[in-house]
Amino acid sequence: MRHQLKTDIGTLLDKVRASTPLVHHITNYVTVNDCANMTLAIGASPVMADSIHEVRDMVSIAAALVINTGTLNEATVAAMHAAAKQANAKGIPLVLDPVGAGATPYRTETVRQLLQQARFSVIRGNLSEIRVLAGLDEKTRGVDATAVFDGNALQQETRIFIENTARKLNTTLAVTGAVDIVSDGKRTCFIENGRPEMARVTGTGCMCSSLVGAFLSVTDDAFFAALAGVLCMGIAGEIAYGNLQPQEGNASYRNRIIDAAYHLTAARLAGRARLTG
Amino acid sequence: MRHQLKTDIGTLLDKVRASTPLVHHITNYVTVNDCANMTLAIGASPVMADSIHEVRDMVSIAAALVINTGTLNEATVAAMHAAAKQANAKGIPLVLDPVGAGATPYRTETVRQLLQQARFSVIRGNLSEIRVLAGLDEKTRGVDATAVFDGNALQQETRIFIENTARKLNTTLAVTGAVDIVSDGKRTCFIENGRPEMARVTGTGCMCSSLVGAFLSVTDDAFFAALAGVLCMGIAGEIAYGNLQPQEGNASYRNRIIDAAYHLTAARLAGRARLTG
Amino acid sequence: MRHQLKTDIGTLLDKVRASTPLVHHITNYVTVNDCANMTLAIGASPVMADSIHEVRDMVSIAAALVINTGTLNEATVAAMHAAAKQANAKGIPLVLDPVGAGATPYRTETVRQLLQQARFSVIRGNLSEIRVLAGLDEKTRGVDATAVFDGNALQQETRIFIENTARKLNTTLAVTGAVDIVSDGKRTCFIENGRPEMARVTGTGCMCSSLVGAFLSVTDDAFFAALAGVLCMGIAGEIAYGNLQPQEGNASYRNRIIDAAYHLTAARLAGRARLTG
Repeated sequence: MRHQLKTDIGTLLDKVRASTPLVHHITNYVTVNDCANMTLAIGASPVMADSIHEVRDMVSIAAALVINTGTLNEATVAAMHAAAKQANAKGIPLVLDPVGAGATPYRTETVRQLLQQARFSVIRGNLSEIRVLAGLDEKTRGVDATAVFDGNALQQETRIFIENTARKLNTTLAVTGAVDIVSDGKRTCFIENGRPEMARVTGTGCMCSSLVGAFLSVTDDAFFAALAGVLCMGIAGEIAYGNLQPQEGNASYRNRIIDAAYHLTAARLAGRARLTG
Repeated sequence: MRHQLKTDIGTLLDKVRASTPLVHHITNYVTVNDCANMTLAIGASPVMADSIHEVRDMVSIAAALVINTGTLNEATVAAMHAAAKQANAKGIPLVLDPVGAGATPYRTETVRQLLQQARFSVIRGNLSEIRVLAGLDEKTRGVDATAVFDGNALQQETRIFIENTARKLNTTLAVTGAVDIVSDGKRTCFIENGRPEMARVTGTGCMCSSLVGAFLSVTDDAFFAALAGVLCMGIAGEIAYGNLQPQEGNASYRNRIIDAAYHLTAARLAGRARLTG
Repeated sequence: MRHQLKTDIGTLLDKVRASTPLVHHITNYVTVNDCANMTLAIGASPVMADSIHEVRDMVSIAAALVINTGTLNEATVAAMHAAAKQANAKGIPLVLDPVGAGATPYRTETVRQLLQQARFSVIRGNLSEIRVLAGLDEKTRGVDATAVFDGNALQQETRIFIENTARKLNTTLAVTGAVDIVSDGKRTCFIENGRPEMARVTGTGCMCSSLVGAFLSVTDDAFFAALAGVLCMGIAGEIAYGNLQPQEGNASYRNRIIDAAYHLTAARLAGRARLTG
């Protein structure tokens, strides 16, 4: 099955490149340029727009919408709500990147309200952010799901937690970290690609969400799109790491990651993918 | 004449480098860093300011103002109007980059109002954006100018359309694409520099507008400034493409384009410029 | 003493790397990505947040706050005030980067109000910005301190001016230029590292302020933190310059500066530091 998956993801990549889908982003101003270049690298077309006066129109002509909470303000939060509702109404797939959920009540509450008012095809975050999302849900049920993670969470426990949370939130979760996990509650896959040095580059998570948005534009299978996005990001990180010159650090690494995505092919994906589960 | 033009553009470049004019930008948050570094690369000095509380003051000490509609909101649109009026009042040259005109009514309407309330020395956009601007004008006259482009528009038809639109909008148009066209309605020039791969880098259009702003700072001839900006961008794109290493993609290409502008000389410009028309 | 200082700064660098302190930024959208990657390069962890709804919470979990006035609007100015007060109340060190103070009344007035309402551990700017800050203070006393700088200010005069201003503003000043000066009014140090080409890269000043924020996170001695930040920036600029390839310009230089900070070690710092005074 894993072999077939790799082939299918390669086909999906070719499909993005052939159709250059428009991926609308409402995102933070820190990593927005990298998200735009990563979207272009994978073969899609980015558009960034966050005014309440145009997000409904913009998302209506887009193939997917990526909402990223990295920098929030009243105006963009209102735009996120309007765009998410419109995307749902038009059947346009939605990605949520809940950057910093849990760091401040404002971020947590914004994410909570987004989850209440719209359905997201994929939510991509790190384990800590996803735990906050699960906790939001749990709170209303009087149970503290985060207890599962006390002590050293084992991979199996994490898997069960992610699967349960995906079902509860009615979404596909893409949880990135040392090992990435993608699950829609029924299907689950671990991805062991990527490099620890990616954490020293701002925006690798955001760029991964942009990739998921690009893949969601060309398939109805959100699990598959999330897997493709996470896998491409990890493999781009590995290839880029191999291309680093001795004096190069995190700024050059950023460029080389985007460059590697630009040169990704179905064959390279299949040759490097480390999928288990 | 073309030979003389090339020499004159080289002289203009030297003039920018000698005077480091301040170029005020009210621009989008996606490509703003690249615009700043491109402005520095060509030898000018960038300042980005978009608060209604300071744009009139800022533009008054600037040598040119670049307004770019890539990401809009109520606050920045108000600032654009205030700054554009002040620039006109003070005789400071204005560039408009109508990013995404036609994509949403908000963008189109914002551009329409800007054109009504201020005179722009140069408008730089792609053909689709310029067609929207021409249509805005036409609508008020009950004619659909965009019909000219049905089917495969030939270069000659495009030329006539651009010349007519430049006259109607009382501006110099810099229309960038596979072949670039610059026209003030009387003089027209085609520029066959550049690379198709530039479309895979976010912000090449925005950076081109920044270059036009830098050149407008040192000459009263808007046609000449627009030509210089478009030519420098195309040639930087070519040189940068030649410098790309095998594994490099669009992120490195972005850097190398700015780097190439940094090292541009009058001699390199003259040697590579492909001007016709 | 200078030898001991160099050793101590190396120790401070190791401390940042060991503790990865969270550095909260309220900063401009032009150079924000570079500030984030520079903060990561030195070993700290950046977070950018500028909504009034979360800055108090965010700064409360941070180890330092950097306020940068590069792009201002009503919402972010209000957030700066709220965050600065909270930082003071919680004893969290504050850096001010008064970008463009003096360029417009809005910037000058915003900086004046920030200085009235909060105490900053370090203010980092160029000499012209610091002169504006000194003048603000002077105005209320009816004396024009800027007169000191008429004609060719000698280094000794500059030193006295900076020391007086540091005492008056009750802060440590880090004044960057051809030669950098750091003073808390009692101790003063000149740093002769860096390259003139750094002025052709947007954001080198902003990145320097981020470095100061990172160092303030791990020491109570603001003079020492400012010195460490300025020194690291200058040395990173020198190393990066040495790594530039022939066709590379200001965009690649930006990346190589961040890369050099990523690879900085206590030994390299000690070997290259040129401290006098």
